[in-house]
Amino acid sequence: MKIAFGQIRIISKDLTYNFNQMVEMIKKAKSENATMIVFPALTISGFAVEHSFLNSDWCKTVESFNDKIKHLADDILIVWGNLQEKNGKLVQTAYASYHQGYLMASLEKKVESSSRYFAEQRYFTNVEEVANTFEFQGKIIAVSFASEEKDIQCDYHIVLDQTPWTMKHEFKYNNYSVEHLLYVNACGMQTIGKQVWMLDGGSSYYHNGKKRSSCNDLFMPELNYSDSNIIPISDGKLLEALTKGIAYFDQQLFSFRPKWIVGLSGGLDSSVSVALLVKALGCERVIAYNLATNNNTSKTIENARLIAEALQIEYRQGSIQADVFATEETLKTYQYTADYPSLVHENIQARLRGHILSTFAAVENGLVINNGNKVEAALGYCTMYGDSVGAINLIGDLTKIQLFELSKEINHLYQKEVIPNNLLPIVKEYEISWGIRPSAELAKDQYDPMKWFYHDYLLEAILKEGVESILASYLDKSIYEKEIGKWLSYYGLNKATAFIEDLEWFLQNMERNQFKRIQAVPGIVVSDAIIGVDYPEAQGYSARSERYLKLKKEILDTL
Amino acid sequence: MKIAFGQIRIISKDLTYNFNQMVEMIKKAKSENATMIVFPALTISGFAVEHSFLNSDWCKTVESFNDKIKHLADDILIVWGNLQEKNGKLVQTAYASYHQGYLMASLEKKVESSSRYFAEQRYFTNVEEVANTFEFQGKIIAVSFASEEKDIQCDYHIVLDQTPWTMKHEFKYNNYSVEHLLYVNACGMQTIGKQVWMLDGGSSYYHNGKKRSSCNDLFMPELNYSDSNIIPISDGKLLEALTKGIAYFDQQLFSFRPKWIVGLSGGLDSSVSVALLVKALGCERVIAYNLATNNNTSKTIENARLIAEALQIEYRQGSIQADVFATEETLKTYQYTADYPSLVHENIQARLRGHILSTFAAVENGLVINNGNKVEAALGYCTMYGDSVGAINLIGDLTKIQLFELSKEINHLYQKEVIPNNLLPIVKEYEISWGIRPSAELAKDQYDPMKWFYHDYLLEAILKEGVESILASYLDKSIYEKEIGKWLSYYGLNKATAFIEDLEWFLQNMERNQFKRIQAVPGIVVSDAIIGVDYPEAQGYSARSERYLKLKKEILDTL
Repeated sequence: MKIAFGQIRIISKDLTYNFNQMVEMIKKAKSENATMIVFPALTISGFAVEHSFLNSDWCKTVESFNDKIKHLADDILIVWGNLQEKNGKLVQTAYASYHQGYLMASLEKKVESSSRYFAEQRYFTNVEEVANTFEFQGKIIAVSFASEEKDIQCDYHIVLDQTPWTMKHEFKYNNYSVEHLLYVNACGMQTIGKQVWMLDGGSSYYHNGKKRSSCNDLFMPELNYSDSNIIPISDGKLLEALTKGIAYFDQQLFSFRPKWIVGLSGGLDSSVSVALLVKALGCERVIAYNLATNNNTSKTIENARLIAEALQIEYRQGSIQADVFATEETLKTYQYTADYPSLVHENIQARLRGHILSTFAAVENGLVINNGNKVEAALGYCTMYGDSVGAINLIGDLTKIQLFELSKEINHLYQKEVIPNNLLPIVKEYEISWGIRPSAELAKDQYDPMKWFYHDYLLEAILKEGVESILASYLDKSIYEKEIGKWLSYYGLNKATAFIEDLEWFLQNMERNQFKRIQAVPGIVVSDAIIGVDYPEAQGYSARSERYLKLKKEILDTL
Repeated sequence: MKIAFGQIRIISKDLTYNFNQMVEMIKKAKSENATMIVFPALTISGFAVEHSFLNSDWCKTVESFNDKIKHLADDILIVWGNLQEKNGKLVQTAYASYHQGYLMASLEKKVESSSRYFAEQRYFTNVEEVANTFEFQGKIIAVSFASEEKDIQCDYHIVLDQTPWTMKHEFKYNNYSVEHLLYVNACGMQTIGKQVWMLDGGSSYYHNGKKRSSCNDLFMPELNYSDSNIIPISDGKLLEALTKGIAYFDQQLFSFRPKWIVGLSGGLDSSVSVALLVKALGCERVIAYNLATNNNTSKTIENARLIAEALQIEYRQGSIQADVFATEETLKTYQYTADYPSLVHENIQARLRGHILSTFAAVENGLVINNGNKVEAALGYCTMYGDSVGAINLIGDLTKIQLFELSKEINHLYQKEVIPNNLLPIVKEYEISWGIRPSAELAKDQYDPMKWFYHDYLLEAILKEGVESILASYLDKSIYEKEIGKWLSYYGLNKATAFIEDLEWFLQNMERNQFKRIQAVPGIVVSDAIIGVDYPEAQGYSARSERYLKLKKEILDTL
């Protein structure tokens, strides 16, 4: 049996776009003599639909596409997922149609109690087990949804999916013992709130547990066949996720083809952002601006110029120092004449950059890209309405360590030094030497308070394991066997008091700056540990657990 | 039996604060010879806890307070709610203790499948039905949770709650047939993400379905008794929700007692905000600034001065015109010399206000209050990083109609014209005359594009009924029987083309400006129809339903 995978790119809520891709693929599959074509779950609506799922009229319209799909099933068996209204409730359903008739009682999906990426349990109703096999050309065919991982006695098992990729996501084909296993996933970008989710595709056919053919898993639509024998190699997947992410975001949400406005400081984060933008959208769509004040060094300004030159993008260099002076004058007219703390001055510069970049965006009919990284966001090391502005963030789910790695990939890709080497640390035996030491350049001799590498690992550990387990591993010294532990001595944290002091500084900053994340920009998800989803937040201070206090005391008393 | 209601104010995550209130109330209740004292659900942790509920060490610490509470139960029966770890899962539980022992198998709460205010289904596990009655002094006492609405055969029925108030929330005591019914709720402020939830209290004792005594339902802690016979009257509840909301928000999150910074334009919204702030925090904590440009009129500037005078707050008047000029000069240095659209100029003014207010806040160690209303937020009629800045919004869940009403209440409360009468429209037979017509004053002769009154009702209808039902009621003319319909002719919307054009303008603006709400400030919830919760959103454009298109066509063809 020649089976086609219809790995369509789903644009949530764009019913016609999604359906038209199905029509095209069905046509092509028929012309290439496929017996069956399989599409993903929720193929017409997508999952990032929110209030539309609560609108019964809208859901009826989505459901009505079933009839149109059924009419395309003449000499080809079509299997697809869609929603279904049943007794006034919404159910995720799988359909199989051949010769314009249905081949099985519609298969209904169990609701996941806590889906990471959308509120499935709010919109969809849980269902009783129903039959999910049918006979076709003498073979028993079973259909299920990926989240259910049900091993069913049959000849062909079809698994429908529509789950975002993260850096950890993988289809668990080993949980199925069937001879012929077909897994079909969607690709594309869908976004809810602050999360920009990427779907990688990777639809595959397994014969006796061995992958025999597949579609690409690089976020692109593809029609492929069980007998095609092509197994793509997914190298540089992170780079693809980020560039496809911004390309789809731009295409799906902004029909006016905006210019993308980058504040290019000459530091690492903005350099990586702009390189990704250009890779995704081409150099004509990107404009970089250097907005210096008296605190910026010629080194970083020269970096910015070179990056823009390497990427062949429009680059405008200037200064916002006059705006800083104007703000200071305005403060005086409002009777603020005293010396105020450095932080006030720093935030003025950052906010004016946010303002001027937003103004450039307005003039250019463009959008600002946000350049914050994951550790900065976690610590709230940013100025609200300053460097925190933008329409989307590409690198906000990446630690600085990941950014260093990605920079090398980018330079490799461009075959030249796009990201200046002076921004990449030389690390030898857990000691760092910097070309240009990371700095926000908002005051003289100001450097990032982050203990790079160590704090990158610390953040991941807090988000994934919880702070108590970090304390426990410090106390029993097992921390020294992990990467995070290897950085302790470089930063003097092998001393218990310094370790605790730093840890509490980190936790307090995370907690105190939650309010900044509430107003943060949306960002592309690439990890399985993101603040707001895997680590949901509520403003306000939390009591520490008794175990935390006990471990802390033991560390300070005994080490 | 003399029963005490322990209506404590719960601060989420502040275990000691919550427990200490219990201790105080138990002591007092004993000294006043109460037989029993009852506390709310989740009394130690609160509900706005988020990732802490995922931390098993933290949950154990919360649970460990049960022992401390039990030890206080000597000659008094204590009933309270808390969480419980059971086979590695979290369960909401009710406890009853007397003479330091438990009186019933712990009662476990069913999880609500879609709680409005926190992700109960994510953190808590659903449980099987368990026994929830026990005998005490010869009486059968039943305990349940408010969301369950279970009518149980018993002598005394105790209902534990911890549910935020909205303008529609009410305990359904009529669903219980028991002779003695005790409902105990918490009070206070708890916040998750953009929602600032208010708990009103209103713990009550009903005898045969008739309220006999109660605690206040004005958001304040109180110890009261079943035999107290005091029934408070809750007048001006909205005003109390907003002032208690900001007072608690300020107290719980900012130990440094910040100044509250208000951009006081002299228009309605900022006037109401500042009056609420002063009512809640006193005049010493509030500073108002008028930040004029060449587009502001002397009328509104005079309004601002008079409001500040009436409230006896510090008021600083000045201009940001020099900052506007500086931005224009900076644009020139970046080679932007052409005339750009009015919108660019308008946004420059708004953003500079956001910047200067944020700078004042930094200098004063203060926080900016946001002044947007519900209709503006829905339409995205605001400038990002401009009038959209702030730490909290007090009036963002109120329509302009509600703001007009609230203004009158405020003036009544202050016994003088705090909110200038020239901002309040005179409405006669569905026609409006304005003293000062609503305007953002960002360009000459600019007025709000909103059709006030009509659009207020339209927004509520879209959020609650869906747009299809509005079209249907327009088609069958039943719309004219409702308040919304009475405004159609004033705005010329009794003509079908004008009605449809306006409706689609409204819908498109709502949809197109979702991105602004993603970065919006948190606000106090007062309604049962809020964008983001009751009307959840995902960026991107949605296909209209077939019913929508059909109704639209019928309206245009037949009316």
